[in-house]
Amino acid sequence: MSAAQTVKAVLFDVFGTVVDWRTGVAAAVRRFAGEQGLELDAGAFADAWRSRYAPAMRKVSTGERPFVVLDVLHRENLDDVLEDLGLDPGPFGPAALDELNRAWHFLPPWPDSVPGITALKRDYIVGPLSNGNTSLLLDMAKAAGLPWDLILGSDVTKAYKPAMAAYLRPAAMLGLEPAEIMLAAAHEADLAAAREAGLATAFISRPLERGPGIPGAGIATKPWDLSVSSITELADLLG
Amino acid sequence: MSAAQTVKAVLFDVFGTVVDWRTGVAAAVRRFAGEQGLELDAGAFADAWRSRYAPAMRKVSTGERPFVVLDVLHRENLDDVLEDLGLDPGPFGPAALDELNRAWHFLPPWPDSVPGITALKRDYIVGPLSNGNTSLLLDMAKAAGLPWDLILGSDVTKAYKPAMAAYLRPAAMLGLEPAEIMLAAAHEADLAAAREAGLATAFISRPLERGPGIPGAGIATKPWDLSVSSITELADLLG
Repeated sequence: MSAAQTVKAVLFDVFGTVVDWRTGVAAAVRRFAGEQGLELDAGAFADAWRSRYAPAMRKVSTGERPFVVLDVLHRENLDDVLEDLGLDPGPFGPAALDELNRAWHFLPPWPDSVPGITALKRDYIVGPLSNGNTSLLLDMAKAAGLPWDLILGSDVTKAYKPAMAAYLRPAAMLGLEPAEIMLAAAHEADLAAAREAGLATAFISRPLERGPGIPGAGIATKPWDLSVSSITELADLLG
Repeated sequence: MSAAQTVKAVLFDVFGTVVDWRTGVAAAVRRFAGEQGLELDAGAFADAWRSRYAPAMRKVSTGERPFVVLDVLHRENLDDVLEDLGLDPGPFGPAALDELNRAWHFLPPWPDSVPGITALKRDYIVGPLSNGNTSLLLDMAKAAGLPWDLILGSDVTKAYKPAMAAYLRPAAMLGLEPAEIMLAAAHEADLAAAREAGLATAFISRPLERGPGIPGAGIATKPWDLSVSSITELADLLG
């Protein structure tokens, strides 16, 4: 595989690729519901929250609003999800909602994430290439034990994927050519944009990202430079 | 010590505090001189190069020139040092001089740096707070085994210490109050600026930074929150 000879850094999409956002967010929603005495479908709540993620970032990418960090977008989206369920966010108070919003900082890694990134770190620069802000990614790394070499959040690049700048600015800051970076991601739209920016691409299959029993989940539909079912498998291929 | 209860991140000055720039640069100068058939005092060359460091950054901080990364300043300063020695940089060629300039990316850590930072990492966020650019600090961390949680170079903050922004922007990106960050540094001017910005301060004595036999080297003249002779000692005090 020629990419293995060129690639110096393996950067990762995080939500869904490195961590299981649905399980982590649903657990936090369940705690919140218990504290507030609410009856909620925690998995459906997590899905509804996540579904507002891309549209919210798009408003920044199109210039409809200035750059704000993902924590702010998540927090606004939380209010919207509550309102969609007929719940007024006001009475819960900002502290309880800010705490729930911080669920995105403390998501559990998939079982192969820490060993896979640890193995890759021996021969490659490893880091997130995420729409998360630096403090979110830092909290997550400390809690989950993700052994990143460095963390450059979207508040550093001031760009949200799939904007080209989100891939090209980290490359420049690392002193690398785009082709010397491989993006590892579970999402083909992310990989397609990374490829357009000149990065190498690795598809990581995460069939359970959106919960069990989703038809076609975790199956790549396009030929990426590598296609694997875990980060440890990626490390074996690149090792 | 009250700082230990408040502090969540210990950030480090790097050149002189974490790594021994003079030994590392002098070794690279010695190699360069050997390849080029030059007679040079490598230690004096390293000192002359370093002496141009603060004035070069000051031109950026005062707005005399727009922000450029430290790699560029180091490279310009290298030409100046050669010219001061009566050597025309031109004939050496850019590749040899760029290679020599990269000496600043691969400096040896002091013996206590890796164990001390490793110990602090258990309970604190650890990272550089350096005027180095991200790629420089990343190369250094990978080569020396410095286990930073994250690396935010001066190209992220677009500010050189001792400008206040160089301390306050990393704090904001980490989602921390200035008082929740401790700067560890071997240089009192750096600590004084950090204190002005509201950070906690730890003086690390590095009497050999500028070579052996410098009178007064490594002695603090002001009362800092902590004053220690190694990063391992700092870890013991904060542990």
